[in-house]
Amino acid sequence: MNQRAHPGAVFLYTDYTRLGPYVGHLHARLLQAVDPAPTVIDLMHDAPAFRADCAAYLLAANLPYLPADAVVLAVVDPGVGTERPGLILRAQERWLIGPDNGLLAVAAQDGADVEAYRLPPAPPGIPATFHGRDVFADAAAQVAATGRPPSGAERVDHWVGQKWLRDWDALIYTDGFGNLISGRRGASAPSHADVLIGGEALGQAEKFADVPEGTAFWYVNALGLVEVAVNSGSAAARLGAAPGTPLRWRPRGEPLLQSAPRPGS
Amino acid sequence: MNQRAHPGAVFLYTDYTRLGPYVGHLHARLLQAVDPAPTVIDLMHDAPAFRADCAAYLLAANLPYLPADAVVLAVVDPGVGTERPGLILRAQERWLIGPDNGLLAVAAQDGADVEAYRLPPAPPGIPATFHGRDVFADAAAQVAATGRPPSGAERVDHWVGQKWLRDWDALIYTDGFGNLISGRRGASAPSHADVLIGGEALGQAEKFADVPEGTAFWYVNALGLVEVAVNSGSAAARLGAAPGTPLRWRPRGEPLLQSAPRPGS
Amino acid sequence: MNQRAHPGAVFLYTDYTRLGPYVGHLHARLLQAVDPAPTVIDLMHDAPAFRADCAAYLLAANLPYLPADAVVLAVVDPGVGTERPGLILRAQERWLIGPDNGLLAVAAQDGADVEAYRLPPAPPGIPATFHGRDVFADAAAQVAATGRPPSGAERVDHWVGQKWLRDWDALIYTDGFGNLISGRRGASAPSHADVLIGGEALGQAEKFADVPEGTAFWYVNALGLVEVAVNSGSAAARLGAAPGTPLRWRPRGEPLLQSAPRPGS
Repeated sequence: MNQRAHPGAVFLYTDYTRLGPYVGHLHARLLQAVDPAPTVIDLMHDAPAFRADCAAYLLAANLPYLPADAVVLAVVDPGVGTERPGLILRAQERWLIGPDNGLLAVAAQDGADVEAYRLPPAPPGIPATFHGRDVFADAAAQVAATGRPPSGAERVDHWVGQKWLRDWDALIYTDGFGNLISGRRGASAPSHADVLIGGEALGQAEKFADVPEGTAFWYVNALGLVEVAVNSGSAAARLGAAPGTPLRWRPRGEPLLQSAPRPGS
Repeated sequence: MNQRAHPGAVFLYTDYTRLGPYVGHLHARLLQAVDPAPTVIDLMHDAPAFRADCAAYLLAANLPYLPADAVVLAVVDPGVGTERPGLILRAQERWLIGPDNGLLAVAAQDGADVEAYRLPPAPPGIPATFHGRDVFADAAAQVAATGRPPSGAERVDHWVGQKWLRDWDALIYTDGFGNLISGRRGASAPSHADVLIGGEALGQAEKFADVPEGTAFWYVNALGLVEVAVNSGSAAARLGAAPGTPLRWRPRGEPLLQSAPRPGS
Repeated sequence: MNQRAHPGAVFLYTDYTRLGPYVGHLHARLLQAVDPAPTVIDLMHDAPAFRADCAAYLLAANLPYLPADAVVLAVVDPGVGTERPGLILRAQERWLIGPDNGLLAVAAQDGADVEAYRLPPAPPGIPATFHGRDVFADAAAQVAATGRPPSGAERVDHWVGQKWLRDWDALIYTDGFGNLISGRRGASAPSHADVLIGGEALGQAEKFADVPEGTAFWYVNALGLVEVAVNSGSAAARLGAAPGTPLRWRPRGEPLLQSAPRPGS
């Protein structure tokens, strides 16, 4: 394949945490896979652990902030070590590489003309427990260098999560400040509505400073997602909520509007 | 503006923590802002949260260890989302970019001929909650690439914290080992003096190994600041102290010497 | 010395944690030490704190995953601030730089024709507490740039840990998921044997999914080391074990096989 003069950037999105050598091994492998090596950026390593569904909605909200031709190496996989084949999706001018468990699926819904490829099976002798390093990293580096799917990848038409709803009225991530991010995009949220969660009805605000300290509210966060927060406090502690908790909407002063199904259900 | 062949390096100094996508978005934005992209280094992301005063003294102590022409993108902002204009300071051959809340002010005191600029207001439609990514990152990338303030920045003469004392006799940061860093530079600390904190009088040592295990002491740390530590232990746990706690000095065997005002008071 | 066109990569392996400015200062120093600056990768910063012995075995298992000519800047040093001279080892086509306390020794055992050098003493005025930044970083950058030991380094024949056993039947690291990594390589582990730890006898599995949820087992991890884990749980919490805890082997159904000495004992 033709090498491009400047390889694209690889963004890492995992649930590995920053502890241990795992993220370091991804970087080390990407450094050795192609020459010149791609730029590698840690997008985040505390993606919702073992929750490919939650992590898929959060990844989708991040994609627009990455450059065109970005390659996202994504790993959130409760079935790690099983014989799950690797998936590559091309959508919105960006590439997504990771397990075929829904993790990549929501991000691919926003683009037209999505292309999907299945990675060839890992060669024998590859440990079953670190496909991020031993399978996906080489594929990501090749894609970044060439702008094309890696050799051996086969075009496919179906993948897990392909039919999941684009918005999910549920909490998907608790950040380090206790803010609760949901899978509902602000652009598709009901207007003039309260969020019902943990037995409370929360009004909308534009930003933290618009409500008194200690007050819970919802707003459209800097990723474009509906987020539940408490000014100068932790919404997670206050509301006892966690990833997977459903979110309900109610017109101001009205009774319950809708329930929150699991994605794809 | 003329692009320089090799852009300067951008150093990130925030209270975002390493959790969530926030630091990743800074990197992603800096990668896209100018071509070639600047080198980006994470100086630290656990700067004293919501304490622009503490964070300002810690930033000032870090500056001498950064290369000339370094651009520091600094964000510690309890008023995030309010209409605070962005500030750029040029001091000690380095650039500082962030909110005008005192965070940049102490670092600028060490240099002669400080230049200050105010960033133009964020264009409409920019979310109020992530100026680090949506306003400061582009400005930092432009400064790194050109060695000049970004287009639209206006020269100003006044900024918050301009008159703060250069040294602050208070704790400003607790590190991951429980060591307590103060805002007092070792070079201006009293000689032959004890530190009074949490009801204890602590003697000076050159390094940890000079005192018995479990003993609290003060020393001049590798940033040049007075630091309170316990050999093989946590000074924070032992002394029950935190950022903002005042530090007092006493000549060995003498009574109380001075009190610890807030910076600027 | 001749500068090579493309300096080798420097990998950081420390117990500094990600908190505070310490890792940032290593990056800042490496950026300024040579031109062009080396690529710098954070291998890990939660190496076993204050346990140079445990950290040495973990470092050795990481080395094969780094590129040839990689330079590892390693710092785990309970005696930080004492007059410990710096050590450089050349082994397996890679370079190791750090304190002479055993940390580098195990990684050097796998290679033939190991070369060892002692760094010159730190010049007067260097703080005693941050040799990683003030001594080792410059040396690492020079080695990365030139492929040769830094000027002033003297060839030596002896170093701490030179005679330590290559395998150590003890736990050396607890990862963020509570998995317990040992100093025993899978390639030299007894076959058809149980691991005895915390009063339990654990059988071998190939991967997590091979045992029921909540079951403790041992397997050869993605670093090639024997690791004790619990499917969907924390082995550290379940077994009450930590770095330094001995590991014993027993043929299936047989009584105790061997004990676990300290390395070098």
